[in-house]
Amino acid sequence: MTKKILIVAGDGIGPEVMGEAERVLGWYKQKRGFDVTVEHELVGGCCYDKHGVAVTDATIEKAKAADAVFLGAVGGPKWDNVPYEGRPEAGLLRLRKDLELFANLRPALCFAALADASSLKREIVEGLDIMIVRELTGGVYFGEPKEITDLGNGERRGVDTQVYTTHEIRRIAEVAFDLARKRGNRVMSVEKRNVMKTGVLWYEEVAKLHAEKFADVKLDNMLADNCAMQLVRNPKQFDVIVTDNLFGDVLSDIASMLTGSLGMLPSASLGAKDANGKANAMYEPVHGSAPDIAGTGAANPIASILSLAMALRYTFDRGACADLLEKAVDAVLANGLRTGDIMQPGMTKVGTVAMGDAILKE
Amino acid sequence: MTKKILIVAGDGIGPEVMGEAERVLGWYKQKRGFDVTVEHELVGGCCYDKHGVAVTDATIEKAKAADAVFLGAVGGPKWDNVPYEGRPEAGLLRLRKDLELFANLRPALCFAALADASSLKREIVEGLDIMIVRELTGGVYFGEPKEITDLGNGERRGVDTQVYTTHEIRRIAEVAFDLARKRGNRVMSVEKRNVMKTGVLWYEEVAKLHAEKFADVKLDNMLADNCAMQLVRNPKQFDVIVTDNLFGDVLSDIASMLTGSLGMLPSASLGAKDANGKANAMYEPVHGSAPDIAGTGAANPIASILSLAMALRYTFDRGACADLLEKAVDAVLANGLRTGDIMQPGMTKVGTVAMGDAILKE
Ligand SMILES: CC(C)[C@H](C(=O)O)[C@@H](O)C(=O)O
Ligand SMILES: CC(C)[C@H](C(=O)O)[C@@H](O)C(=O)O
Repeated sequence: MTKKILIVAGDGIGPEVMGEAERVLGWYKQKRGFDVTVEHELVGGCCYDKHGVAVTDATIEKAKAADAVFLGAVGGPKWDNVPYEGRPEAGLLRLRKDLELFANLRPALCFAALADASSLKREIVEGLDIMIVRELTGGVYFGEPKEITDLGNGERRGVDTQVYTTHEIRRIAEVAFDLARKRGNRVMSVEKRNVMKTGVLWYEEVAKLHAEKFADVKLDNMLADNCAMQLVRNPKQFDVIVTDNLFGDVLSDIASMLTGSLGMLPSASLGAKDANGKANAMYEPVHGSAPDIAGTGAANPIASILSLAMALRYTFDRGACADLLEKAVDAVLANGLRTGDIMQPGMTKVGTVAMGDAILKE
Repeated sequence: MTKKILIVAGDGIGPEVMGEAERVLGWYKQKRGFDVTVEHELVGGCCYDKHGVAVTDATIEKAKAADAVFLGAVGGPKWDNVPYEGRPEAGLLRLRKDLELFANLRPALCFAALADASSLKREIVEGLDIMIVRELTGGVYFGEPKEITDLGNGERRGVDTQVYTTHEIRRIAEVAFDLARKRGNRVMSVEKRNVMKTGVLWYEEVAKLHAEKFADVKLDNMLADNCAMQLVRNPKQFDVIVTDNLFGDVLSDIASMLTGSLGMLPSASLGAKDANGKANAMYEPVHGSAPDIAGTGAANPIASILSLAMALRYTFDRGACADLLEKAVDAVLANGLRTGDIMQPGMTKVGTVAMGDAILKE
């Protein structure tokens, strides 16, 4: 059956890096009989400019109907002063929420060829392979009340609300435990239960689920501030980390920075399977829209291309195709090709399209 | 006039490291005519064991009456299963809240002698000197509702509330701008305004205060996830960072880890000045209670001793005494003395008391 992909390339370097991912997708259509139709829509600042909102209802419907959504990146200084509801990030957040993409998988891999590019010492990061599982549709991102009220006398009051329920915690922990079984079989659950009641609930529900269904997986718990420290001190102690939306945002950015290759890291955001076994899914690079280099052809397309590999693996059940693509990326790096963000002495500097070409050739 | 200090040494290594700080304090009494009386009280797990609460009302009153409180550390696995309200951290949080210690100053300094102890490359951290100003009495730590409710059917719901008002944001930003003027004259204000309304309020109020009173200081803004990344990528770009309670917790722990010398870093928590010019103040090491080495005489007392230096500077207006103490610590390190946590090849390993001795001698 023909699969449907919706590409929302977004702002900044989004269209450039997505262009390369789409070329690679084209290769799989031609050479591997991957039967897929592709549509394009706007999301983020570009959508706000055209429609006055960061994502339209029609795009949300298309995204729901698609087997996978590929997102480039959203945002940029151009939209710094648009109203809160119209800011580019609102489009991304609505996609996550409306598609119920509660499980955000962010691998932090240190590519052998790039171990020296990290600000950390080589021995600390070499061989690093962490999977961060971030809850993506709950917590302080979406809880109500979320408002600013005027108290008079020039005083205002801002409120955000962090909410988690048993159900939300169990389903994300389940994803983490399942993934751990296919990896190092260890899960580190991260919260701040010494200060937050949601942290207490998180801790208790994860422990309960573990005892019920995943006693074979090693489970440990860590406070979020300590986890941030440990990621810097000795990141290789971790296998799978599972945490809430806000801590996941910060911790996964730390983890990606350790690898020295932010421009290389993909992510998957997954929903629950419906009765027909279909799950909503969105794939996107971890990096942002990099407005400073947008349009110059210098952006690194590897994160987008590896996001396609994640899609092949998680949505389209084509593990062999995903392996092939990941090997092609490894080979291109081993051959010394580098975009500007990962450039090292003695290597060959190439642009977005040339990097895409090289990967296609492999 | 005789000054009053209250020492709450707390749990784990707290009493050991505080013992050394107190010996150094004794030196200042004898040799520098520092006129001060010292009392001791319990806080944390040790207080829970004796009184069933993590801090008593009487101790809170004494803390309010004191010119400065010195805290060692609280917590440990022994109290993992005490009720939420009685956990050791509750004592610390109540001290912060009842004394209105809204401004937490956490310097992250890379000591020249220890630049190689960091997991980051030497060139990334050498000479690092950041001051993190963390809001300490607001945000998600104290906002209401903060509760777990039973929804029936095995479902529970946890809530924490992040609240900030104009007044709270202005007073902490004011501290940051004031400090910046005495340092590199640059402030980085950190929030997550693309997701949180408190972040929007924070951003706007800091900008307003800046325009009104601190236009001479360079102000920049950064999202919290990006700040966490930038601390790992290139920490020397920062001078003063000002942020909320929760982000401050995580970011200051990252910053301290960069220095490779968590056991060396002091902190100050300050309240507003009252009509007589007195401000509540609490000084404590950034490190925790390290239950694994408690009682072995191996703990590093330098963070506690440098907390005394901060007290001499910020509460007792004895800058010269503080300088002297900081120089003594530098000299001891230059002489090659190290406790276990900062031990390096070729150096001389010493215990808590011997380190205190050496600093006293200098
Ligand atoms: C763009 C922003 C809303 C988003 C987030 O905070 O989740 C980003 O930082 C991310 O991690 O995907
Ligand atoms: C012990 C804990 C409550 C505390 C906090 O979260 O503030 C600690 O992590 C700190 O940073 O002082």
